[in-house]
Amino acid sequence: MPTPQVLAFDIFGTVVDWHGSIAREVAERYPEVDANAFALAWRAGYQPAMQRVRSGELGWTRIEELHRLILDGILPRFGLDHLSEEERTHLNRAWHRLDPWPDTVAGLTRLKSRFTICTLSNGNIGLLTNMAKRAGLPWDCILSAEVFRAYKPDPRAYLGVAQTFDRAPEQVMLVAAHQDDLAAARACGLQTAYIERRFEFGVAQPKDVSPDPANTLQAQDLLQLAEQLGC
Amino acid sequence: MPTPQVLAFDIFGTVVDWHGSIAREVAERYPEVDANAFALAWRAGYQPAMQRVRSGELGWTRIEELHRLILDGILPRFGLDHLSEEERTHLNRAWHRLDPWPDTVAGLTRLKSRFTICTLSNGNIGLLTNMAKRAGLPWDCILSAEVFRAYKPDPRAYLGVAQTFDRAPEQVMLVAAHQDDLAAARACGLQTAYIERRFEFGVAQPKDVSPDPANTLQAQDLLQLAEQLGC
Repeated sequence: MPTPQVLAFDIFGTVVDWHGSIAREVAERYPEVDANAFALAWRAGYQPAMQRVRSGELGWTRIEELHRLILDGILPRFGLDHLSEEERTHLNRAWHRLDPWPDTVAGLTRLKSRFTICTLSNGNIGLLTNMAKRAGLPWDCILSAEVFRAYKPDPRAYLGVAQTFDRAPEQVMLVAAHQDDLAAARACGLQTAYIERRFEFGVAQPKDVSPDPANTLQAQDLLQLAEQLGC
Repeated sequence: MPTPQVLAFDIFGTVVDWHGSIAREVAERYPEVDANAFALAWRAGYQPAMQRVRSGELGWTRIEELHRLILDGILPRFGLDHLSEEERTHLNRAWHRLDPWPDTVAGLTRLKSRFTICTLSNGNIGLLTNMAKRAGLPWDCILSAEVFRAYKPDPRAYLGVAQTFDRAPEQVMLVAAHQDDLAAARACGLQTAYIERRFEFGVAQPKDVSPDPANTLQAQDLLQLAEQLGC
């Protein structure tokens, strides 16, 4: 395999800790709620909501709006259906305020010294930009399903990165904590790096991080990935 | 006027010195050529080429490809029609290697401390990313006509910035060295800052930098703009 030129990063779970961040924010604002269950329920609506876009049931809809649809759907279950419009808008933007994993900023900074580093997230551009500004994520470029008007695992998202930088697919490496995302990237000819993120769903439910030999690399975190890539 | 939240920057001429950079590169590689005239001729093809896209004569075409069409057109005039495909490709990427004006990096860094700063250029995303990486331009986000599939002065480009960040148009300020770009942004409800860049076309042909009172601000350079915006 050639040395990749561009590293494209999945975000939710790979670069930032969505579960811990959402649970912390909910626990602080609504101490009566089971914050762990709330975070899991919100995220559980993510794939089904995108599927409504992929299937054509919904026209192009940003994650921003999908997060809000899911939120409105789960609030009654958690006894929060009294939340005002303003409170819902603020809570929905918790996805802009996700904290990076402890290794993220240092790992990205090292990787940036040698590669072009960009996001490739189903999150919308504004969300990803606000997140990066708050968390200090040093992206060279923010790419998103919103740019390609296609949610991963649509091939247009993965191939869109290669085309954006005038690179062959194998000169791009997708970095992600999700094997299905990586498999779809591989089917498009990209190289792939699996990041374990054993506690993506919280410490109470460690994730299976078994290796898939089809990936180019597997690393515990972004500092180990930087090491493996010689940065 | 409210304080803007997002500053969107025109790039060619406003943030980077296209004339000086192209002329220097041509003078170094092809000393027999009138480098000043070459830079002006290449840039002179820019608006007409985009007009072919705006009018529908060409489908969506990136600036990368338009630069190349123009280059192929002017090479014979400068006695360079013997250039190989490889040399043409390399020369075409001179637009990725444009140098910032002396105040740019310091000015953007100050402005970034208080505002979200993004590009809003007709240049393509890959070109803008490579330019930023080489020159150290600290963008929060790279936006481009390529994201909105519409070249400035199409309203979709200006309004696209506001929509991307869920802001009202007047919460976005376009920063540009070109009055026509600013006028189009103003017609969409954006605030506008004119940057003088008296020598955009080289010292031999200083540009008229007369104020237009319709602009929110006018500054000699990005450091003065930072001063005006209290950064």
